[in-house]
Amino acid sequence: MNAIVYRAIGIIHTPFTHTTGMPIQPCGAIGIRGSVEVFPEYGDGLKDLAGFSHIILLYHFHQAPTFRLHVVPFLDSEERGLFATRAPVRPNPLGLSVVRLRAVRSNVLDVENVDILDGTPLLDIKPYVPDCDHWKVESTGWLASKRRRLRTTRSDARFERS
Amino acid sequence: MNAIVYRAIGIIHTPFTHTTGMPIQPCGAIGIRGSVEVFPEYGDGLKDLAGFSHIILLYHFHQAPTFRLHVVPFLDSEERGLFATRAPVRPNPLGLSVVRLRAVRSNVLDVENVDILDGTPLLDIKPYVPDCDHWKVESTGWLASKRRRLRTTRSDARFERS
Repeated sequence: MNAIVYRAIGIIHTPFTHTTGMPIQPCGAIGIRGSVEVFPEYGDGLKDLAGFSHIILLYHFHQAPTFRLHVVPFLDSEERGLFATRAPVRPNPLGLSVVRLRAVRSNVLDVENVDILDGTPLLDIKPYVPDCDHWKVESTGWLASKRRRLRTTRSDARFERS
Repeated sequence: MNAIVYRAIGIIHTPFTHTTGMPIQPCGAIGIRGSVEVFPEYGDGLKDLAGFSHIILLYHFHQAPTFRLHVVPFLDSEERGLFATRAPVRPNPLGLSVVRLRAVRSNVLDVENVDILDGTPLLDIKPYVPDCDHWKVESTGWLASKRRRLRTTRSDARFERS
């Protein structure tokens, strides 16, 4: 299969300089602020974004080690299939966070609820639109009994590079 | 900036063989079925996924032309900043759809609500978890008065390769 080649369109700045001890999802990072520096050549694409209260950031887990197909997630003590988790050790290490957009200052976005490592390469920004992104679910598998702990659990070293 | 190199982990099969005339979001594709063929070498990562009613597909808009920073979206007649839209003509042409998971048959997922072009390269699968992905928004910018038409609008040729 052919390679798909992407390039960072910016860098995400956050208070988290180590992969250990971080919130594991935006719902565990309420109020934590960061900024998204979009490289100047892409700045024109930010027009109209300020109208949205929430945006989707897609980024590259640049510190993730080689992928594993089975992982013990932060919330669990059992091995789960990787694609049934949000662990960073993915074949294509794509991260996704919905963050609150506080302000757009030229090519810099002030954001809140960031669960992202400082220095993370940004790949895309999309507006968060409830009609597209809000779904009523019937089941959340192994996470069903553990979802509440998403808010309080912090990362440990299990997905660090050796 | 260094290249970020990804590879398809599978192929998405849908009834949509042309980029024109398609639903523009999953909410406009309710009940439309497709399948996600995960390459056998990644099949082990699908363990435990069957427990989730909804999943996030991240994929490569393989038919998208070169990016533009200003676009007239399908729902609008005015030019908008690309990152304030879900248009496919992105610097990194990453697509995101939340689909309903009907069944997991070995390395094939039967899915519903697909708004994706047939033959699209799959990059990642994540479980859809309301605690992570469900946000109450205050504003949806230029889309606010047009959101209802997401369900009925079909794509035209404006983002086709010339």
